[in-house]
Amino acid sequence: MNTMNRATTETTSGVIDKLRALLGDRLSTADAVRESHGHDESWHPTEMPDAVAFAESTEEVSAIVRVCHDAGVPMVPYGAGTSVEGHIQATHGGICVDVGGMNEVLEVHAEDLDCTVQPGVRRMQLNEHLRDTGLFFPIDPGADASIGGMTGTRASGTNAVRYGTMRENVMSLTVVLPNGEIIRTARRSRKSSAGYDLTRLFVGSEGTLGIITEITLRLYGIPENISSAVVPFETVEGAVDTTIYTIQSGIPIARIELLDDVQMDALNKYSKMDHPVKPTLFMEFHGTDAGVAEQIAMVKAIGDDLGAGEFQWSDKLEDRNRLWQARHDVAYACKAMRPGCEIWATDVCVPLSRLAECIAETRKDLEGVTIPAPMCGHVGDGNFHLAFVLDPNAPEELRQAEDLNERLVNRALAMDGTCTGEHGVGLGKQKYMRAEHGDALNVMRAVKAAIDPTNIMNPGKMLPAQN
Amino acid sequence: MNTMNRATTETTSGVIDKLRALLGDRLSTADAVRESHGHDESWHPTEMPDAVAFAESTEEVSAIVRVCHDAGVPMVPYGAGTSVEGHIQATHGGICVDVGGMNEVLEVHAEDLDCTVQPGVRRMQLNEHLRDTGLFFPIDPGADASIGGMTGTRASGTNAVRYGTMRENVMSLTVVLPNGEIIRTARRSRKSSAGYDLTRLFVGSEGTLGIITEITLRLYGIPENISSAVVPFETVEGAVDTTIYTIQSGIPIARIELLDDVQMDALNKYSKMDHPVKPTLFMEFHGTDAGVAEQIAMVKAIGDDLGAGEFQWSDKLEDRNRLWQARHDVAYACKAMRPGCEIWATDVCVPLSRLAECIAETRKDLEGVTIPAPMCGHVGDGNFHLAFVLDPNAPEELRQAEDLNERLVNRALAMDGTCTGEHGVGLGKQKYMRAEHGDALNVMRAVKAAIDPTNIMNPGKMLPAQN
Repeated sequence: MNTMNRATTETTSGVIDKLRALLGDRLSTADAVRESHGHDESWHPTEMPDAVAFAESTEEVSAIVRVCHDAGVPMVPYGAGTSVEGHIQATHGGICVDVGGMNEVLEVHAEDLDCTVQPGVRRMQLNEHLRDTGLFFPIDPGADASIGGMTGTRASGTNAVRYGTMRENVMSLTVVLPNGEIIRTARRSRKSSAGYDLTRLFVGSEGTLGIITEITLRLYGIPENISSAVVPFETVEGAVDTTIYTIQSGIPIARIELLDDVQMDALNKYSKMDHPVKPTLFMEFHGTDAGVAEQIAMVKAIGDDLGAGEFQWSDKLEDRNRLWQARHDVAYACKAMRPGCEIWATDVCVPLSRLAECIAETRKDLEGVTIPAPMCGHVGDGNFHLAFVLDPNAPEELRQAEDLNERLVNRALAMDGTCTGEHGVGLGKQKYMRAEHGDALNVMRAVKAAIDPTNIMNPGKMLPAQN
Repeated sequence: MNTMNRATTETTSGVIDKLRALLGDRLSTADAVRESHGHDESWHPTEMPDAVAFAESTEEVSAIVRVCHDAGVPMVPYGAGTSVEGHIQATHGGICVDVGGMNEVLEVHAEDLDCTVQPGVRRMQLNEHLRDTGLFFPIDPGADASIGGMTGTRASGTNAVRYGTMRENVMSLTVVLPNGEIIRTARRSRKSSAGYDLTRLFVGSEGTLGIITEITLRLYGIPENISSAVVPFETVEGAVDTTIYTIQSGIPIARIELLDDVQMDALNKYSKMDHPVKPTLFMEFHGTDAGVAEQIAMVKAIGDDLGAGEFQWSDKLEDRNRLWQARHDVAYACKAMRPGCEIWATDVCVPLSRLAECIAETRKDLEGVTIPAPMCGHVGDGNFHLAFVLDPNAPEELRQAEDLNERLVNRALAMDGTCTGEHGVGLGKQKYMRAEHGDALNVMRAVKAAIDPTNIMNPGKMLPAQN
């Protein structure tokens, strides 16, 4: 535990008293509450905050931040707790600011194809809310994450290959700065050249620059036709090459996901399905009836040359939902492979031309490894995941995962890729920030110091303390 | 002229001597060179730099910057000089760093759909270079601007409605910081969650944070079918509503441009064409043969209900080029309306739902105005332009333009729009930055101070000195 910038017990007690006066029952120091807010879905050990503040409005977040700021007490913003790199562990103690209860869809501008939501809105809740408008929000990281958390980690997921990531789909933010000031990062126009792009600066900032309290998002019309397919391949190479040629051909496929044989086996067992235990692509096509038919014909022609098996189609909403739920449940399916174990989920992203090579070398590296490590990925973006299923109390398993992870990251960096395509840095990827960014890391530190000079916003995350 | 931060004559002379030792003939103090580098294509008066340094490599830019940095002498980055809000006027004197000669396409990764170019590469040159690869770079602001300048102003233009702006299409940058350090803002993977989005911070920073020396761009496959059309309407409202419904229907139109009757008259005369002098939409459709046919049928059905005249089609490359060249030449067509006059081009962008209202109110505001003020715009994004054709030596014409501009901006801001959709802030839009951004302007200032603490990078631009 890094104790730098941890406030004294006395200072923290004073802040807790003030926050209790402000929030009443919505300030909790109960062990169970602190424990549940001290970890995300990763293997990183729990680090409890000193208290949890449940905020209900932007103004209330601002008031909480002012109290903490004046006393120099650290804060950790909290949405749904579904992050996977140790983003919300309170490594420096302090106050966890839980905005999960700020979960209203504030405005839907159907005619502008946008909406404004509070940060605690979950992605499924948003799409449920939108259903009658004929619009949807495509970004889908798997977990039913909060929109605030998805913004903070620059999330993407299965639909990003067509619709982009949170980077492309957040139009504007309301943010409470580390000193309690409230700003709005942009207007609601589709484009602007008026000054620095503060929206994109806060997207992916992992709570280190402020607390996001409103998010304006781009929306899309629900396509006339949505068709999903599952296709097994004889080899991982065949599946990866099918993906690469599909993207290179400019086919606007909405989802194209690879699951390796280990992952398919786990998925079959957990989700009670009977897919062939082979490397498999999950696909989805969006468009007009004619457009989707055209896309499908093109992808089938590509796959046929590369060892694709039979395409199993799901046209009905119910079947599609079951299919994608199974895809989204892979993390839980992995966990079920070894009861009592934790998942160390890692992800890298490389240029598409290096993807086949990166996956092949990684599979080779996994030969002889004793912990299960199923692979899946948003391969249309060059992004893939390994999930190490390990006993967090077994040091040699942790060491094995750490070594594999390090080799994976170095492999991706050597291919001009990134140490994380979508999970974010949190605690887990800090040690690779210098290797990835070189002197640009100094610029990130300068920006952090300019906006959070006393380092009270999620300290100890994203930017490494040294090097 | 703002003289703050202007170095003394002696200091500047010393810097010029050092740069001459470094660059030889590529350091010029000739009046003609300084004059041509002291203005862009706007009405803003020329402000000459003390010298112009013609750089040939990233390392050379770094060396130039170190000399200026050590002496505290301001720098203005220069690409092609096609900006329109006074971005390159040397209001604080100092050295103009001309990277226009750094005009090589360094790498094309066709299989990754990206390329890396030097900042002086022009957009037409890039597409000429790419032609044999079957790929193209879509961003097209009209002028044959440099990619560096387009990055600096977050340019967009006619294709943005489908392909996005420079914000969405710059993947990574090499930047020389104000202290001469060289950084790369991102890897070449299609997405990343590894730290602050420095790429987007530098895109649109108008040379105020550093000098961009390499740009990695997304590319797209040249569509199987490209079809362009020109359609006159009885009313501006009919043309605008056709645009709005087209976008709201999710039709992936590549270009949809409005020119009002005044603009069409100027265009006919300048480009020797004979279009009806009516509000007109210029459109382009990209896709497969079947996909384009489908898009066209949908847009025609929308237009038919809203007073669209006959669609005049251009399927041949030659005809399409002539059509879009005429569209791009509107600035020159405006200038030809009053020989000897200058163009004050302004642009705003509003949410699509407010576009019809914003244009209608603006047209009303123009009634009785004596200076010509043709209107055109990238209406699919809610973005439109007025070009005031005025005598820059006639104070009452400048005042009239200033008043119209101010009312236009205030109208856009009241509709949750922006004071500039794509031209940038430069000198011309600074006075609206506080009204648009409120306290977020303070964050922009903090970022500027963190990266350029001595304010030597294009000082006096973008961020207002006061308020």
